[in-house]
Amino acid sequence: MKWDFKTPGIPDNFFVKGAPITKEEVRVITLSKARIKENSIIYDVGAGTGSISIEAALLARNGKVFSIEKNPERISLIKKNIKKFGVSNIEVVEGEAPEVLRALPRADRIIIGGSGGRIRRILKKCDGKLNDNGVVVINAVKLDTLRDSTSTLQKLSYNFRVTQVHINKFDGIAKALSTIFIIDAEKR
Amino acid sequence: MKWDFKTPGIPDNFFVKGAPITKEEVRVITLSKARIKENSIIYDVGAGTGSISIEAALLARNGKVFSIEKNPERISLIKKNIKKFGVSNIEVVEGEAPEVLRALPRADRIIIGGSGGRIRRILKKCDGKLNDNGVVVINAVKLDTLRDSTSTLQKLSYNFRVTQVHINKFDGIAKALSTIFIIDAEKR
Amino acid sequence: MKWDFKTPGIPDNFFVKGAPITKEEVRVITLSKARIKENSIIYDVGAGTGSISIEAALLARNGKVFSIEKNPERISLIKKNIKKFGVSNIEVVEGEAPEVLRALPRADRIIIGGSGGRIRRILKKCDGKLNDNGVVVINAVKLDTLRDSTSTLQKLSYNFRVTQVHINKFDGIAKALSTIFIIDAEKR
Amino acid sequence: MKWDFKTPGIPDNFFVKGAPITKEEVRVITLSKARIKENSIIYDVGAGTGSISIEAALLARNGKVFSIEKNPERISLIKKNIKKFGVSNIEVVEGEAPEVLRALPRADRIIIGGSGGRIRRILKKCDGKLNDNGVVVINAVKLDTLRDSTSTLQKLSYNFRVTQVHINKFDGIAKALSTIFIIDAEKR
Repeated sequence: MKWDFKTPGIPDNFFVKGAPITKEEVRVITLSKARIKENSIIYDVGAGTGSISIEAALLARNGKVFSIEKNPERISLIKKNIKKFGVSNIEVVEGEAPEVLRALPRADRIIIGGSGGRIRRILKKCDGKLNDNGVVVINAVKLDTLRDSTSTLQKLSYNFRVTQVHINKFDGIAKALSTIFIIDAEKR
Repeated sequence: MKWDFKTPGIPDNFFVKGAPITKEEVRVITLSKARIKENSIIYDVGAGTGSISIEAALLARNGKVFSIEKNPERISLIKKNIKKFGVSNIEVVEGEAPEVLRALPRADRIIIGGSGGRIRRILKKCDGKLNDNGVVVINAVKLDTLRDSTSTLQKLSYNFRVTQVHINKFDGIAKALSTIFIIDAEKR
Repeated sequence: MKWDFKTPGIPDNFFVKGAPITKEEVRVITLSKARIKENSIIYDVGAGTGSISIEAALLARNGKVFSIEKNPERISLIKKNIKKFGVSNIEVVEGEAPEVLRALPRADRIIIGGSGGRIRRILKKCDGKLNDNGVVVINAVKLDTLRDSTSTLQKLSYNFRVTQVHINKFDGIAKALSTIFIIDAEKR
Repeated sequence: MKWDFKTPGIPDNFFVKGAPITKEEVRVITLSKARIKENSIIYDVGAGTGSISIEAALLARNGKVFSIEKNPERISLIKKNIKKFGVSNIEVVEGEAPEVLRALPRADRIIIGGSGGRIRRILKKCDGKLNDNGVVVINAVKLDTLRDSTSTLQKLSYNFRVTQVHINKFDGIAKALSTIFIIDAEKR
């Protein structure tokens, strides 16, 4: 499958599934907040299904995406999706953040979809790896993650904004799909 | 100003203002549903500030955007924003849909942000101008527009989906920014 | 179990379950829009679990609630809940609206939680049974029900308002519980 | 004016205005979470327009409401609303929480609508004044208030839940009215 469009937002059901997926509408806002350039070096922390990694890789055609995931089944799923969409600029990093970040090259953009309750340590480590004017985007579905993210970003003297996104889909009955807090921050 | 990023979602406050603007988060979902290609011919009906036109033109670099607006002040505003972002593939069409659509070349994508209560007539006219496999996206903030859009699309035998988007911004106190129904449909 | 409080909003998990339940937060807004008096005669159309009926009966202590439900399992469930909460002013009406409404005394308040796609016919019949200054409240989870309710109320020359309610619960991860349109209308 | 109904939810525009008001839909959920009894002793901290105080007083007919507000204009407004609704069981307490709480009798229910950034100190003081099995309900419109409330309640070993409420009203165009976090907690 080839995604022929210049707009992100690959429909959820185009991906091989088996792990939580960042819903397409949340995904496009997340990518938008990350402000991806053609040559951006990007980390996708807690990559899950790989949907963010694949869209990021399609946008950063001359850049590279490091897709970080510890769960073996999800790693296999990400690889299937990479193959399905024919993307060549993703490197799957098997292991857990923040530990595995050490060995990676510096990043321009860091997107954190899953943090396993370690968001404070991850953000501090990311700060050390992020280039100047770099951008971090966190997708939080727990109040704890929201709280720990914002307090850590404050300590790191990052500017940040919090945007909450709700999506309802009307296919017959109304379905509340997603409730998520998106925190985006710049390294000054 | 040059928008250097591959991701849409130019911040609202980057635009010269003076008319209602499609908020950046709603804008990126709207553009995503429109599935824009590099060479797409696009109508932006009820262009307002021109934010959708400008982002669409940046995505469809080898295509063209027809930015349709009847209000003289808004037309002037759109032109200011075109100049500000240095975009060359937008043609501002002064007048009201559906009448002014007659003279335009056929379109691949039609985005309707404002319909002035004439959404049924606009959609019927658009159907005649839309290429096969073309996509229509409507942003509705009134239940009347939602109802009239979906009933007209049903009559035209279009597939369509309804997505409702809510955005809260947390800058000090919570601010509910936007509530909008986005209807996207394909011409079969 | 006795509900000792003057405020409605019995927690969902206090009810014997087995059918869709109007969530407690949506229930209190629905009851509020119905403006129940101590001696109100109330229909609960499509009573489901009976949660609306039971709260309405507790508020209208000198009035009466007709709890209308066609599904035998749900009828049994409603009866269990009536017993559990020790309420004596509910009459369970077995059958389908609008047909079964014919035999009932006139009503002051009509709450429609389920309409099985027959909302237009139900509203017309309800109009004939509703006392002057009576109130109708409809809970719609489908755009079709919303559209048909509002167009029928317009034809009947009722004043009405549409309120959409979203509830997120944060128990660990954010959970979008309910998305519902509540239409309330007065008979003039 | 007499509120003749057993259901809370007095329409916003029935109140004399001049200060922020807890919107009627948010108000009924807030009161519901407070689980008011006929004889409850209630604090309304940061009473604003007095809408919560008045509805609480109508529900707790044999109880009493202490309406705490420091702003002289708002105090005057609360008194106008008390007069308008003919309620006799409200005592307006002029001053700021937590200081003014010292002189008050113990409470069964405490509703905190405004905390002026002092929510931690207020909650600690409230803990000392709240009877066993008492309930605290906080309406938070800032993430800071949400965070400080939940962390303080955790320290106090209270059970608590967080419910977020969004209300859209459709009167012509969609209007996103309210976004609020309601935290309710029991003293064990």
